[in-house]
Amino acid sequence: MDTGTTAFMLCCIIGLTLMIPGLALFYGGMVSVKSSTNMMMMTFGAASLVGVLWVLFGFSMTFGTSSGGLVGNITEFAGMKDLLEPMTTVDGLPVSLFALFQALFAAITVALISGAVADRMKFGSWMLFAGLWAVLVYFPVAHWVFAFDGVVTEDSMGGWIANKLGAIDFAGGTAVHINAGIAALAVAIVLGKSLSWGSDRKPHNVPLTLLGAGMLWAGWYAFNGGSALAAGNSAAIVMVTTFVTTCAAVLGWLAVEKLRTGHVTGVGAASGAITGLVAITPACGAVTPVGAIILGLVAGAVCPYAVALKSKFGYDDTLDVVGVHLVGGLIGTLMVGVLASESMPNATNGLLYGGGFGQLWKQAIAAGAVILYSFVVAFAIAFVLKKTIGIRVAPEDEEKGIDAKFHKDGSYELEFA
Amino acid sequence: MDTGTTAFMLCCIIGLTLMIPGLALFYGGMVSVKSSTNMMMMTFGAASLVGVLWVLFGFSMTFGTSSGGLVGNITEFAGMKDLLEPMTTVDGLPVSLFALFQALFAAITVALISGAVADRMKFGSWMLFAGLWAVLVYFPVAHWVFAFDGVVTEDSMGGWIANKLGAIDFAGGTAVHINAGIAALAVAIVLGKSLSWGSDRKPHNVPLTLLGAGMLWAGWYAFNGGSALAAGNSAAIVMVTTFVTTCAAVLGWLAVEKLRTGHVTGVGAASGAITGLVAITPACGAVTPVGAIILGLVAGAVCPYAVALKSKFGYDDTLDVVGVHLVGGLIGTLMVGVLASESMPNATNGLLYGGGFGQLWKQAIAAGAVILYSFVVAFAIAFVLKKTIGIRVAPEDEEKGIDAKFHKDGSYELEFA
Amino acid sequence: MDTGTTAFMLCCIIGLTLMIPGLALFYGGMVSVKSSTNMMMMTFGAASLVGVLWVLFGFSMTFGTSSGGLVGNITEFAGMKDLLEPMTTVDGLPVSLFALFQALFAAITVALISGAVADRMKFGSWMLFAGLWAVLVYFPVAHWVFAFDGVVTEDSMGGWIANKLGAIDFAGGTAVHINAGIAALAVAIVLGKSLSWGSDRKPHNVPLTLLGAGMLWAGWYAFNGGSALAAGNSAAIVMVTTFVTTCAAVLGWLAVEKLRTGHVTGVGAASGAITGLVAITPACGAVTPVGAIILGLVAGAVCPYAVALKSKFGYDDTLDVVGVHLVGGLIGTLMVGVLASESMPNATNGLLYGGGFGQLWKQAIAAGAVILYSFVVAFAIAFVLKKTIGIRVAPEDEEKGIDAKFHKDGSYELEFA
Repeated sequence: MDTGTTAFMLCCIIGLTLMIPGLALFYGGMVSVKSSTNMMMMTFGAASLVGVLWVLFGFSMTFGTSSGGLVGNITEFAGMKDLLEPMTTVDGLPVSLFALFQALFAAITVALISGAVADRMKFGSWMLFAGLWAVLVYFPVAHWVFAFDGVVTEDSMGGWIANKLGAIDFAGGTAVHINAGIAALAVAIVLGKSLSWGSDRKPHNVPLTLLGAGMLWAGWYAFNGGSALAAGNSAAIVMVTTFVTTCAAVLGWLAVEKLRTGHVTGVGAASGAITGLVAITPACGAVTPVGAIILGLVAGAVCPYAVALKSKFGYDDTLDVVGVHLVGGLIGTLMVGVLASESMPNATNGLLYGGGFGQLWKQAIAAGAVILYSFVVAFAIAFVLKKTIGIRVAPEDEEKGIDAKFHKDGSYELEFA
Repeated sequence: MDTGTTAFMLCCIIGLTLMIPGLALFYGGMVSVKSSTNMMMMTFGAASLVGVLWVLFGFSMTFGTSSGGLVGNITEFAGMKDLLEPMTTVDGLPVSLFALFQALFAAITVALISGAVADRMKFGSWMLFAGLWAVLVYFPVAHWVFAFDGVVTEDSMGGWIANKLGAIDFAGGTAVHINAGIAALAVAIVLGKSLSWGSDRKPHNVPLTLLGAGMLWAGWYAFNGGSALAAGNSAAIVMVTTFVTTCAAVLGWLAVEKLRTGHVTGVGAASGAITGLVAITPACGAVTPVGAIILGLVAGAVCPYAVALKSKFGYDDTLDVVGVHLVGGLIGTLMVGVLASESMPNATNGLLYGGGFGQLWKQAIAAGAVILYSFVVAFAIAFVLKKTIGIRVAPEDEEKGIDAKFHKDGSYELEFA
Repeated sequence: MDTGTTAFMLCCIIGLTLMIPGLALFYGGMVSVKSSTNMMMMTFGAASLVGVLWVLFGFSMTFGTSSGGLVGNITEFAGMKDLLEPMTTVDGLPVSLFALFQALFAAITVALISGAVADRMKFGSWMLFAGLWAVLVYFPVAHWVFAFDGVVTEDSMGGWIANKLGAIDFAGGTAVHINAGIAALAVAIVLGKSLSWGSDRKPHNVPLTLLGAGMLWAGWYAFNGGSALAAGNSAAIVMVTTFVTTCAAVLGWLAVEKLRTGHVTGVGAASGAITGLVAITPACGAVTPVGAIILGLVAGAVCPYAVALKSKFGYDDTLDVVGVHLVGGLIGTLMVGVLASESMPNATNGLLYGGGFGQLWKQAIAAGAVILYSFVVAFAIAFVLKKTIGIRVAPEDEEKGIDAKFHKDGSYELEFA
């Protein structure tokens, strides 16, 4: 066992866990005050549920021996037994630590979707959706992308995207961001538009959103850097690209905002940061630092336009999970095929570096497969819930605020009694 | 020296320090707006005071050569001299780092008590209480539980619970949570009920409480994982159990809340998380991941009822330090004797795994000793302060809000001037 | 490569990044509600801009081969190329990681200045100032202080303060705090007093300020401890002194506040913590734990008086960057010459330990040089901006609040619609 690598991954768990309140605040600050507790509870609730499912059988479904590259054996590591056995092929890392690292990926990915359903989804239905989507979509798709052959047991077969297709996705552009982003679109469509659709929706607490973005930024180094699974050069380089893409995306988003509206907003800065982080997630081991700056500027400048698509097409993706995570994730995933440089850890040349269309094509297939599968299943889950227990609160409850309906207290009591 | 283990423990300091603002916000968000600055100041003030005391003589009282297993030699490491000497028996770890790790335990434990005295305790008296309780209770009890024979110098004798009794307390179920929880009960009794007793007290800022809980969650991995004192399999397993107990306790608390009141609140989610973290603290190296889920569900489901006891018995433990830390700590400490599995780092079988009543009995003795000692001394300190300098603000100041009395400004000025 | 040291420094990046939202909140909570988004945006904007500049050429200007000890070669590491090459002389650490660690120093230092220009500086002018000051002041001064001979390439020459003068500045008392503090004074003078000068300015959100201070405290261990560039005894000791100076400075500040005003405020506790952190930054490897307590008490007790100087001299350093960072940095830098003990990592004796005036004199020269250079150039940049594009908002916009002018939304919408 390598104590340095183990130390790094142990500390990544601290960083990843900061993303749970980080996400809750990033989203929670953006919604109306009367649904702010609900927004935060969706993150805490989903993360907690997925954490338990992961230990019970999710790790096994994701990293158990593969059935045809599609899904792992659900019983092989059920209950995360045999924790004391060190991992065989990822040298130097306890298997329990790898499992926990991936648990937080699962928890956070599912929670990302909640941004699309703000203000109007029944809390119980959200929890059910979160659990079902984790089991039916996230665990299999994470298997496709993250289960490299032999990663847990020496002769186990992993998922098709990682091993057969050979798409590059360092830390989850497909499995995390495209996956959550397209699911968000599906459930937003099934759920229908909020009553506030078309009005000038204002964030109720910009400092919380900026704080949340900052905590996500900090935790994201664990997400991306930790995906190197070793305390070494690769993790370091990955953190450099993660840092500078984020910086560039903030500048890109604010520049576009300034040009379009004359203002630069706090939500814009926060959204720019998250957009950069999303875009670099698949590409963090593939592009050079200067490539990372370009990627950040592009993602930061394109996504404000992507966000505006919801008005055009009429889906109420309330907090722009589609515009930021789906589009940002697509930009990053595809740009790997363009900007990848052989001198970086992924050791692959993209189109611009003379690598031809080969990698770009693989990236597109991976993205397309995840989009198709996740959209269809997410839509089906939401649709079945809608037709059975219902997924939307009554209009009068939405009007009064979803916090009052499900969570009793509002978020604030700032008046002196 | 092992650089990996050292790296892990260095980073744990960052995580533990996040628990200071985390606790301040967790508590601060739950109180009325007019005592919110006071609430946060009690954490920052107590942590700062205890930090200085720790360096001056607290480390020495806790880890100096033992007098009969009861308390360490107060002069042996006074001023934390000889920092450059590496620790002799905990291989690979600088002694200064071990001392700092334990400093944050002390600082946080004392601050935990402040939740019981919200709204009504004189700030100076709180600071005095904090310093006296640290010296008279925490340093000795931490010696009992955390000072293993030979941990700092090769032939030093440590505390009686760790070495003679052999109770299992991985990261402080007794020394931290039962200890602070029972002291909270004592001081709440001496202090008397808040003027707001019996009214429907509402949290003034739920997002702060959820954020605080999230920061505590993240920092707690350092608390529990770092207690392994090595970057290895044990720390990894401890983090797995810490994670999943917390998830399960959130679900358990919310389920009970839903059944009892029809609502699931933000304070409930936050309290559930902290309850899970408290319960797993002694047990994190003893129970399997599935055992950890069971422990979390039990603690999360029982503690909401424990919290309700204050109405029945009439002590005003304002923010439920007793219900969460004392009861949660007891559940975790005792369940070690039931759920412990030999396959885990503590290598002990509890009642359910065929280990008989032996371990359960040791756990009960440890818990009982800490309860008795901490309650009596905390009560005495509070009583003496009450009879001398006074510990409670005047009723008119409590009515106007304790912030105005001691801290000049209120917490917020949200109106445009 | 040493995986332990690499793990430590990787995790320091997470800690340092938490300082970005930490600083934004620490400052953001202290200003009026109508300029709170602007305050936070200045930190996020400056950090993002400096991050991009650092990768493009800042790292090269700071750590490239020196021209006479004054500035590094701007093209040598432009674009941070050759990332995969391990650093030659700092054993065991990837050069990319060292570069990223220093990137965050640059980003945070520039953002510190923004506290002096609250409420009234044009956002675009702030961004320009931030970029120009980073290039013309921070990159060269960081070269003087942080570029030790041979740190990146074996035979490279570094900066004059680190190598020729031999002043001790473990983590940036001169390059970071004195540097930013004196620049803050210069720009505050050029900018002129806020319209609110002389009125009783109240912090709009004390919990945010305390939270920000707590996050800065946690991240500062990465700042100071990481400057040891190794996971070992030195980093551990540095964290001990960082911890206890902060504790002592909180107590010192609160004691002075109590004596002067009868109150202890949340902003006082937060400012005390930051003052302690600033003061220990240059001295963290030089003073003993008891020396660190003395330093903290002194800095915590002196700085509240330093803060009051702005009223006497009439410069509107709104959030006391001068009183905390310049004065705190000076206290720490000079006290190294007094309190340094040979038994600590810097292995030097100060005046009190029989080392004579030698080290104190070196400390004074380093501080003086940074003060002179940074003040003159910062003043010149601000002056040129003032005479060209303007640096101050119109009085009517300042009256209405700078948020409305540049950032569209206010920070809060807490009323139920």
